[in-house]
Amino acid sequence: MNCLEARIAKDGVVKEGNVLKVDSFLNHQMDIALMNEIGKEFYERFKDLPINKILTIEASGIAIAYAVAQQFGVPLLFAKKSKSINIAGDTYVAEVESFTHKNKNTVLVSKQFLTKDDHVLIIDDFLANGCALQGLISIVDQAGGTVEGIGIAIEKGFQVGGQIIRNLGYRLESLAIVESMDPATGKVFFREQ
Amino acid sequence: MNCLEARIAKDGVVKEGNVLKVDSFLNHQMDIALMNEIGKEFYERFKDLPINKILTIEASGIAIAYAVAQQFGVPLLFAKKSKSINIAGDTYVAEVESFTHKNKNTVLVSKQFLTKDDHVLIIDDFLANGCALQGLISIVDQAGGTVEGIGIAIEKGFQVGGQIIRNLGYRLESLAIVESMDPATGKVFFREQ
Repeated sequence: MNCLEARIAKDGVVKEGNVLKVDSFLNHQMDIALMNEIGKEFYERFKDLPINKILTIEASGIAIAYAVAQQFGVPLLFAKKSKSINIAGDTYVAEVESFTHKNKNTVLVSKQFLTKDDHVLIIDDFLANGCALQGLISIVDQAGGTVEGIGIAIEKGFQVGGQIIRNLGYRLESLAIVESMDPATGKVFFREQ
Repeated sequence: MNCLEARIAKDGVVKEGNVLKVDSFLNHQMDIALMNEIGKEFYERFKDLPINKILTIEASGIAIAYAVAQQFGVPLLFAKKSKSINIAGDTYVAEVESFTHKNKNTVLVSKQFLTKDDHVLIIDDFLANGCALQGLISIVDQAGGTVEGIGIAIEKGFQVGGQIIRNLGYRLESLAIVESMDPATGKVFFREQ
């Protein structure tokens, strides 16, 4: 059991409808010591690759991506979810349809910060159906860059996102893969890795 | 000239309409070494206070707040801009009307992470009219906590936010206060501090 699995077992809260609340330490209030441990763990797993940029999506991915970028000593870039006046007009755009909500989300990255020379590690806090991730991959592809790997804190192993991304051939590492959760007992069952 | 003012002078881009673009190093792509310098600078300025929590607002405040929280060794809490299913129903809410856009923004923090025992340092990347900041202050007040200080990376000194916050008696420290900008020459003029 790694540091994140142990923390989920201790402080994660299981709710009806396959909801896992980790907002006391991961995606609302954040434990910086845990984040830095996660950053080190991703560095160990991906340090053999020529990564020169970390890409995430706002908002809750930013803190984990910060911890990872700090380990690699490379810039952190975060994709925005809607057009802002402070983003240059020249942006890569991915329109991603949510499986769950049936709505479309627009993911944006300014063209000046991703090029064909970039070797990108994509980082996010959660992977469920993988919609946000598909948008980020599309954006790196549009830039002609290389997705070297994808690091996820918590993957919901009972949803399709992880399988889709692995089927596409990407190197995806999830620190904790949740196989199932029991809202009656609050217990979380992890995939053996 | 501190590290942030020097970086703005070098890499900031001035656009018509008093727009200062710092998205190559501060709020889209982020230079982690600069962020960590900013974190250390805020620690030096506020280390005399009994701060036990850093509060910011999504999205671009999170990286700077991470750097500051790392220096203080305390948790980072970020306010969300709209209701999410992963936030507990029991939230502090501030409705903040934007001077500029005339629209209302809702700022949310889960009640379990802010109490009367909290001594909060509020961190954000930009201060212009101060609307987001007023929402964050309101939320700490609702919790009965103490706003020990407010740290801003870039204050637009020609807009009213900084004056309002200082008039209210808050200890506000801005690393760079922009007095004026010239889109013709690209030059940025800082307030002497």
